[in-house]
Amino acid sequence: MTKPENPPVLILIDLQEAINDPKWGPRNNPDAEDKLRHLLDGWRLLGGPIVHIRHNSTEPASPYRPDQPGNAFIAEVVPLPDETIIEKQAHSAFIGTNLEQHLRNNNQASLVLAGVLTHNSLEATARHAGDLGFLAHVVADASWAVETTDFSGKLRSAEDVHNLSLAHLDDEYAKVIDTAEALALLTEKAG
Amino acid sequence: MTKPENPPVLILIDLQEAINDPKWGPRNNPDAEDKLRHLLDGWRLLGGPIVHIRHNSTEPASPYRPDQPGNAFIAEVVPLPDETIIEKQAHSAFIGTNLEQHLRNNNQASLVLAGVLTHNSLEATARHAGDLGFLAHVVADASWAVETTDFSGKLRSAEDVHNLSLAHLDDEYAKVIDTAEALALLTEKAG
Repeated sequence: MTKPENPPVLILIDLQEAINDPKWGPRNNPDAEDKLRHLLDGWRLLGGPIVHIRHNSTEPASPYRPDQPGNAFIAEVVPLPDETIIEKQAHSAFIGTNLEQHLRNNNQASLVLAGVLTHNSLEATARHAGDLGFLAHVVADASWAVETTDFSGKLRSAEDVHNLSLAHLDDEYAKVIDTAEALALLTEKAG
Repeated sequence: MTKPENPPVLILIDLQEAINDPKWGPRNNPDAEDKLRHLLDGWRLLGGPIVHIRHNSTEPASPYRPDQPGNAFIAEVVPLPDETIIEKQAHSAFIGTNLEQHLRNNNQASLVLAGVLTHNSLEATARHAGDLGFLAHVVADASWAVETTDFSGKLRSAEDVHNLSLAHLDDEYAKVIDTAEALALLTEKAG
């Protein structure tokens, strides 16, 4: 008998009050917090593994700094006392952390990534995960991007930024899925 | 006396015949090969450090596979016998290679990155370099992207893909510069 594949680990990225700072500009996916709540409820109910990534910025003006109120997790995803929190200072959650070792020690090859911002820490982590050989999934409707001025000066909507980032990831570094598909993946393995 | 900072290392990414395969679709920056030639000539003339990254794909249908003619370097950037070649299989040139160790051993903190594709291996390597604490520069006019259908099905021009990718990198993971600025950086340190 082959050992059944372990349930996917839910990895929530940088979901801290700092992301609500108006400085980031308009975002897409206003329902993403509800989707995150559904994901977390599902993972908790079925006992799926969970990792919360907390960003501790070292930039002088960042609301993500550990000494700022923005460092706190947003209400929808506050970790329970027994859940794993991994703190990072870079964009990719694999840099300067024990995330890779944590996943390998627990034989967790399948990852479900959600959080913020799609095109920044989420994308950096998803690229890194795929390159390290993990089976990474990115939950499109439980993540969001922000409006961005591109290098030519053209304003690009948050929705456009989100959708181009997902296209770069999909089938190249990760599989892009939605919340319902993420919960189905978990149920298959843990139900 | 403080030790002067070492000259920046030119890192050329995935510049192999495979990138000319029509399967990738329309590209931008038709002059990028000329710019790459200028960069390489400048670095060779002034004895700046050079690293050629060679992608050895493991994907069954990729023209970048080592057993395919596309694995060969493009004519403009064929390495000289004494230049460093680092082979990779992932997108980021820091994964599964000795690139980080090579740079640290040689006390090379300032990187000048150019090559293909802007939004794929170049971006993955630039993000990774910045996250590792290197002072990364990306040469905008010596790199190119390709037309991409985003996750919503919208076609995005190669120029748009290039410019959004550069905006994500600039001042967050790397500094985006052009060929003239890259040569000026080198001349400052090695001239």
